[in-house]
Amino acid sequence: MNEMIERILAHRTVRDFEERHLNPEQIETIVRSAQAASTSSFVQAYSIIGVTDPDKKRELAKIARNQHFVAENGHFFVFCADLHRHDVIGKMEGKDVAASLESTEKFMVSVVDASLAAQNAALAAEAMGLGICYVGGLRNDLEKVSELLKIPDKVIPLFGLAVGYPASVNDQKPRLPFEHIYHENEYQQNNAVYKEQLKQYNEEIQEYYRARTEGERCDTWTGQMAEMLSHPQRMYMHDFVEKQGMNKH
Amino acid sequence: MNEMIERILAHRTVRDFEERHLNPEQIETIVRSAQAASTSSFVQAYSIIGVTDPDKKRELAKIARNQHFVAENGHFFVFCADLHRHDVIGKMEGKDVAASLESTEKFMVSVVDASLAAQNAALAAEAMGLGICYVGGLRNDLEKVSELLKIPDKVIPLFGLAVGYPASVNDQKPRLPFEHIYHENEYQQNNAVYKEQLKQYNEEIQEYYRARTEGERCDTWTGQMAEMLSHPQRMYMHDFVEKQGMNKH
Repeated sequence: MNEMIERILAHRTVRDFEERHLNPEQIETIVRSAQAASTSSFVQAYSIIGVTDPDKKRELAKIARNQHFVAENGHFFVFCADLHRHDVIGKMEGKDVAASLESTEKFMVSVVDASLAAQNAALAAEAMGLGICYVGGLRNDLEKVSELLKIPDKVIPLFGLAVGYPASVNDQKPRLPFEHIYHENEYQQNNAVYKEQLKQYNEEIQEYYRARTEGERCDTWTGQMAEMLSHPQRMYMHDFVEKQGMNKH
Repeated sequence: MNEMIERILAHRTVRDFEERHLNPEQIETIVRSAQAASTSSFVQAYSIIGVTDPDKKRELAKIARNQHFVAENGHFFVFCADLHRHDVIGKMEGKDVAASLESTEKFMVSVVDASLAAQNAALAAEAMGLGICYVGGLRNDLEKVSELLKIPDKVIPLFGLAVGYPASVNDQKPRLPFEHIYHENEYQQNNAVYKEQLKQYNEEIQEYYRARTEGERCDTWTGQMAEMLSHPQRMYMHDFVEKQGMNKH
C-alpha cells in the first residue's frame, strides 16, 4: 500500500499541540492545498479565515466550551461556506443572482465546497507531520463567531481546524463496519441485517472503551448517539442561516 | 515539498476513463479511506453507494445531462448525507431523536461528514494512480436518483464520484488568488481590494482560456459565475430535503 493511503488510514485527532507556530510557508501550502480540491461548477464557494489574534482565539475557545486547543495550537483556520463573493459578482456584472444564492441547492454547494477544501487542508497538514482537529464547537454561537471575524451576509463559518505540532496523539476509534457504510446498487433494504451490523459495531466499540479504561467505560455507539441526539443542539441554526441570506427556498 | 502535497496540488479532473473496472480491493481501500476522515462528534452521518448495475449507471448519466463518464468509468460512488441510521438508532434505544435529526444543524453535519469522507476517497483514488470526477449533476433529479438507489427517509444523495483509469486528463484551471480565499483575523473589509482581486483573477482566467482556444474563448470568471447564477437551478431542493425529513427547523 502506498504512503499516501497509509497516511489517510492512519489519521488520528490531535487535541494537544506544542507551543510552536506554523510559518507563513506552511500556512500557504495548507491553503493552496485546500484550493486544489474540486469545486462544484468552479464556483469556489468558500473562504478560510486564519485566526492569529490571541484574544480572538480565546473567545473562540470559550464559544467551543473551553476546548483549550482552540486557543493553543500552531495555527487556527475557520472554514466558511461563502456566497458573499457571488453576491458582489452579481452586482459587478449587473445580473440578478439573488434567487440562486438564497436557494438550498447553493447552500449545499457551498457547504460541500468548503468541506472538500478543508479535508485537503487537513491532509496537507498531516503530510507535513502536523496534527489536526476539526472544531464543530464554533457552531455553538455563530452570531458571536461572525461578530469576532466580521463575517458578511451569505457567509457561514462552518467549523474550525486547529493545526499544530502534536504534543500527544489520540487513539483511532474503530469506524462503522464497511458493509454498513458501503452499499451496492441500492441502500441496504434488509432492516434485520442493518441492525445486526449496528450491534456488531456496538460490541467492537465496547471492547475499545473497555481496553482503554480498564473496564470502567463500556458504552455502546448506538447508546452514545441516541443519548446525544435526544438533546437537540444548536436549534438556532435554521434561523441563523436564513438571516445570513442562505437556505431560504 | 513532499509527495503527498505534490499530489494534492496536482489534482486534475478526469472525465474520460479506460474500459477497466476497479477490483474489490481498490474499492475497499477507497471506502476505508473515506471512513478514516474526521466525523462530527463521531456521528458518521454518511453512506456510500457503489453503482455497478449498467442500467442504473445509464439512468444516472441521463439525470446528469448525459455526461458519458457517469456510465463509463472504473467505478461509480454516490455519497449520501445520512441520518437514517440515527433514526433507526433512536428507535432501538427508545429515545426521541426527531427534533435533532430534522434540524438544519444536523443537516449541515451530515453534508460536511459526507464531503470530508468523499475527499479522502478522491485522494486515495488519486494516490493509486486513478482519476476522479465529482458529479453534482445527480442533483438535477434527486427524486429519480432516490428511486433508483432505494434511498430511505433522512438520506440525501449529494453527489457522485466517478473513478477510473484516466484515458485523458483535464488541465488544471487557476484558482482564485490566495489573498482572496484566505483572510487573517477577519473577513476582508475593504471592498475595493476585494473587487480588485476579482479583476486580477479575471485576467488570469481570460489568459488561461485564450491560450487553450487560440484566442476564441475569453470569458471572465465573474462573467461565467454571474451568468450561471442568474439562472436558478434545482429550486426543488428545499422541498426535497424537507420531504426527506431534514433541514426542517
